[in-house]
Amino acid sequence: MTDGNGARPGALMAIGGAEDKFEEKFILKNFFDLCGGKDARIAIIPTASKLEGTGTAYQAIFNSFGVQSVEVLPLFRRADANDPAAARVFEQATGIFMTGGDQNKILAVLGGTESLHAIQAANDRGAVIGGTSAGASALSDPMISLGKPGSMARSGMVKLTAGLGLTKTFIVDQHFHQRERLGRLMYSIMLYPGMIGVGVDEDTAAILNPGGGCIDVVGRGTVTIVDGSELKMYNPASVPHLAPMVFSNMVLHTLTHGCRYSLIDRELEMDRRSAGPDDYC
Amino acid sequence: MTDGNGARPGALMAIGGAEDKFEEKFILKNFFDLCGGKDARIAIIPTASKLEGTGTAYQAIFNSFGVQSVEVLPLFRRADANDPAAARVFEQATGIFMTGGDQNKILAVLGGTESLHAIQAANDRGAVIGGTSAGASALSDPMISLGKPGSMARSGMVKLTAGLGLTKTFIVDQHFHQRERLGRLMYSIMLYPGMIGVGVDEDTAAILNPGGGCIDVVGRGTVTIVDGSELKMYNPASVPHLAPMVFSNMVLHTLTHGCRYSLIDRELEMDRRSAGPDDYC
Repeated sequence: MTDGNGARPGALMAIGGAEDKFEEKFILKNFFDLCGGKDARIAIIPTASKLEGTGTAYQAIFNSFGVQSVEVLPLFRRADANDPAAARVFEQATGIFMTGGDQNKILAVLGGTESLHAIQAANDRGAVIGGTSAGASALSDPMISLGKPGSMARSGMVKLTAGLGLTKTFIVDQHFHQRERLGRLMYSIMLYPGMIGVGVDEDTAAILNPGGGCIDVVGRGTVTIVDGSELKMYNPASVPHLAPMVFSNMVLHTLTHGCRYSLIDRELEMDRRSAGPDDYC
Repeated sequence: MTDGNGARPGALMAIGGAEDKFEEKFILKNFFDLCGGKDARIAIIPTASKLEGTGTAYQAIFNSFGVQSVEVLPLFRRADANDPAAARVFEQATGIFMTGGDQNKILAVLGGTESLHAIQAANDRGAVIGGTSAGASALSDPMISLGKPGSMARSGMVKLTAGLGLTKTFIVDQHFHQRERLGRLMYSIMLYPGMIGVGVDEDTAAILNPGGGCIDVVGRGTVTIVDGSELKMYNPASVPHLAPMVFSNMVLHTLTHGCRYSLIDRELEMDRRSAGPDDYC
């Protein structure tokens, strides 16, 4: 993990939506800490949301943690996202947070703009980029823009479109078990078998560490990793629309708070916090 | 596959429930063929069902196929299942069919009885044993007796109890995707990591071939294989009730009509009927 001040890229924090905003605020506190804690300068992107107060609600929460600065950037049209004033805020940020709503809106407004270039540059120099729900989906490229529920992978059940491209290693999905999205994530990985699926439950976050070496999990739910590197399957394009997909060797991992998934070993590392080594088989 | 007359054990046919009984009757026709077609002598066990006409409805269907003989055995109490007359019917059968209903009822009536011994002996000499829904669950030992839905594996979400024990290699689940039972099957395999989970959709059957070498799939839905042989996990007993299970390397396979899963290679073999080799990657 980065403290946001190092030379290496910052972490990505993919939050599964519906994170606690009223009690312990564990996930948001974790984001604040990753961004530098009291030294953090956070920029909030409320683009995905239809609700007027979404950005300011997060602003109030980060202020309550004692953040050095937090600004809501009202990027609702492409012209807003090409305004140099926005890029200057991202240049100063140690953390950038994208709210939930509709990930397609994020791409429609930010795709190819000066703001997106500034966000990418900020991440490259160490700023942490977090997103919840739609904001989590938008992190990857491609991103899941919409799909059907269910644990069965069906042909064409998901639409994948251009994402922000802050990672090209992972495809992120959110509200994962709550909305039964395993099928659509497995199908996405059949289309992009070189990528790794990351399904994040509500009030839970997957911290995608820079360099792609590992994923850490925090929060109350689970993070499911879908690894298709050993897949055997039919050419997905040959399967009729919504017919079940035939496949072999889809590898699943499910992690809870404190777990780390290693991309080197392609498996769960010891839970370093909540259980002793004798319990690991 | 056996024709029911050979010296080797007969196949087990696990049907996921809700098989077509009114139109093509594809699954039931397949069972009839496995049992020897026009030479078949079928015994129906309606024990699981609460409905009086369940056994005779299947009897009428097998009669319509031109079966040599088909008999409904009214085994509803343990005394019925210890009646030597029932055992004599099983001794003559080339196929035995268990209806849906409640698998716990099957075990309560048949467990440890002369009828169960006769069913096991019949399968050993080549008779095919089929079961739909509850009748499919009862084939294995242990069997899934009840559980909670969802694609997430949670501690204690399923109750495993003694089954008929016609297979100790597979744990069968049914109505699989329709009732979102992936989580409970994965959890079952965490408790019995030496067994292989077989989740069968409605109007679909997994034909568990004798000798355990392969599984063939017929029907309109899918069969999902859950292989836990490479699992890493916490001791399941250490996880609080209904908390998510942490695991790594759960391997899934999903097969449709015409597919074969090889237990030797632990993966899907070529679909031999419906797709050309160029489509297999």
